[in-house]
Amino acid sequence: MTVRIGLLGFGTIGSSVYALIEKEHDAILEATGVDLRVGKILEIDLSKAGVAAPAELFTSDFESIMADPQIGIVVELIGGIDWAFRYVEESLRRGKNVVTANKQLLANKGAALFQLAKDEGRQIRFEASVGGAIPVIKVMRESMIAADLHTVYGIVNGTTNYILTAMYRGEGDYLDTLARAQQLGYAEADPTADVAGHDAAAKMAILASIAYHSRVTMADVAREGIEKITAGDVQYAKDLGYVIKLIGAARLIDGRVNVRVHPTLVPAAHPLASINGSYNAVYLRGHAIDEIMLTGPGAGGIPTASAVVSDIVSIASTKTAGFLQNCSCYKVLDFLPDDEVVSTFFIRVRVEDRAGVLARIASAFGEHDVSIESMLQKNRGTTPSWCSSPTPREREASSRLSTRSPACRW
Amino acid sequence: MTVRIGLLGFGTIGSSVYALIEKEHDAILEATGVDLRVGKILEIDLSKAGVAAPAELFTSDFESIMADPQIGIVVELIGGIDWAFRYVEESLRRGKNVVTANKQLLANKGAALFQLAKDEGRQIRFEASVGGAIPVIKVMRESMIAADLHTVYGIVNGTTNYILTAMYRGEGDYLDTLARAQQLGYAEADPTADVAGHDAAAKMAILASIAYHSRVTMADVAREGIEKITAGDVQYAKDLGYVIKLIGAARLIDGRVNVRVHPTLVPAAHPLASINGSYNAVYLRGHAIDEIMLTGPGAGGIPTASAVVSDIVSIASTKTAGFLQNCSCYKVLDFLPDDEVVSTFFIRVRVEDRAGVLARIASAFGEHDVSIESMLQKNRGTTPSWCSSPTPREREASSRLSTRSPACRW
Repeated sequence: MTVRIGLLGFGTIGSSVYALIEKEHDAILEATGVDLRVGKILEIDLSKAGVAAPAELFTSDFESIMADPQIGIVVELIGGIDWAFRYVEESLRRGKNVVTANKQLLANKGAALFQLAKDEGRQIRFEASVGGAIPVIKVMRESMIAADLHTVYGIVNGTTNYILTAMYRGEGDYLDTLARAQQLGYAEADPTADVAGHDAAAKMAILASIAYHSRVTMADVAREGIEKITAGDVQYAKDLGYVIKLIGAARLIDGRVNVRVHPTLVPAAHPLASINGSYNAVYLRGHAIDEIMLTGPGAGGIPTASAVVSDIVSIASTKTAGFLQNCSCYKVLDFLPDDEVVSTFFIRVRVEDRAGVLARIASAFGEHDVSIESMLQKNRGTTPSWCSSPTPREREASSRLSTRSPACRW
Repeated sequence: MTVRIGLLGFGTIGSSVYALIEKEHDAILEATGVDLRVGKILEIDLSKAGVAAPAELFTSDFESIMADPQIGIVVELIGGIDWAFRYVEESLRRGKNVVTANKQLLANKGAALFQLAKDEGRQIRFEASVGGAIPVIKVMRESMIAADLHTVYGIVNGTTNYILTAMYRGEGDYLDTLARAQQLGYAEADPTADVAGHDAAAKMAILASIAYHSRVTMADVAREGIEKITAGDVQYAKDLGYVIKLIGAARLIDGRVNVRVHPTLVPAAHPLASINGSYNAVYLRGHAIDEIMLTGPGAGGIPTASAVVSDIVSIASTKTAGFLQNCSCYKVLDFLPDDEVVSTFFIRVRVEDRAGVLARIASAFGEHDVSIESMLQKNRGTTPSWCSSPTPREREASSRLSTRSPACRW
């Protein structure tokens, strides 16, 4: 069976998809019977492409891809929301299936696109939108179909993990390590989407929607970035036996959904503590499976292209649209607001060197029904003292770093 | 779409499959459109079943399942090779698709069954045969279709991992911990299949066949069990900074396949070192993906049933037989014999307390072109001294425990 794709975008990922299809064409044909071909490539700016492709494949005319009856699958890799939405919408209307790596598109416009795909009897696959080469979407939608998932959490942003890993290794403060990440191409010139947690929030919205069969958008995700974390924070956490990671967590608690992204103190012995650099890791917990974890490279042209190609072959191999393929949000669950979620918090308090000051802090916590799990005082005097304050109602395995807790703001 | 299954066997896994289908029926229907029903159950001995099912579902007549045109999928959970082979063969011939958890069947009779499935245009799915709830088969066959895998390794037997974990924790010697594993149901009354590595070898044969598209059977796997490991071995390894694990490894080296299962010294900081109890973990390494790891419960009725149910829904969702579904062994690769594989070995030598004896050991190793990576001498005198000897040609990340190395047998 010949499967011809229209490739939208020929930047890092697009050109990697092209190269990978060229390299693995014969192996894919032998293993699956799919004769995979790139029919057309929509791209004007070829300066970002890492590989060459025949000039006759390129077009600047999206309509020529739509009008080509041989092209059955459109692969959207241009990014952004507006144009990507128009292209994907038009592709579905014109009878094409769609593969995309665009997490922002799905986290913001997913509802409309999945409904359209269902109405048109077409598929949208989006493995590459979360976790790079890690097949978390297929695993959740197909392998976990009977698992009754209740918790999804992990490290889903490589840029922040690279920065936090470098800070943990003592390679500098936040701005130093961010600058190095930018030099090495791990962070964008404007790093906001990554460091403020928007990218991770979009990914967690996608994972939560799949896990709980109820629509979760970016706006539903409580979000806190890593911009305020100092080398001192990282060192204090280390002294307490923790590693600071940007953790995304989506939970189903008493039928309500809570999704959040924030820096978290992970115990040094926890496997997530050793997920370093641009690697990602996702834990899936469900009633039937206890806990499954997947780790792997969270980004990179070829790893992401590997996920895109597997989506293309999966579309070619599956029967019906609307059947495992698209977001099956058949429920409308309520959200559990983030301020109703009880957590362990990590609090740093800088105090004057006066007798009795720690006792006053402790009693203030007590008055507000906050119990202290562990406390570390360093450099008696003007330097910070720290305390970790879990509530009696719920103790989570990992602590939440924050200075926002009302009980601790005084 | 109504999908009716014939369930062969109603032991731990079979009854868990029944229970999980009952529990998740509505969720699966909503999410995928598959109305999943158990049509008939072939079982006479109901003493092993953990749950009840309506009496009218049970039959002792396999032919009644074959003759039922409403049953499209046969789920083989009786185990063993002879009867399972007959039932699976007959099911395929009679136009049924097959789901099985039977690793011994596939590792020994896979070639004939996959060929038959291909000829008949039917699918065999077998996610539950390796790694319990971990979706390693689907991930390898579908998500890694363009990954160009060259290494698959990990912990694929829960019984031995339970025993080795208990020994590492100082809970006793091999026979003590085996006895406790038997009491708790983690090991069979005759534990040979697990502790001698047969179970792990069957699983590695399956994984290698999928990874390299070339048939690997049980007989092709070099195998060494954990029966000779003493509490002393475990302690010495610990002192050297290692954890002893039963590791399965399938490698593609210069176009030749090497598959083996043996106790291995894993560095304590390696993630595999912290896979404890009956958990399993599989690493997949490929040119396009760097490294993906999956961990999760390697056994248990409900986790295994979760994999079986996902296979059933996957069959109902996919188009063509022979297309991603069956073993695509379109190559016939040579094997790299295990004695041609250069490894790091872990060697324990008990010596007399005489001056110069260590020098003689070291020079003997040198004469045989064996270099010593690290050496630990304990209790000078009659107690053992140890050395780890990697060769200059190849250093592997993990060492191989063995006293079989010719260079060290003197």
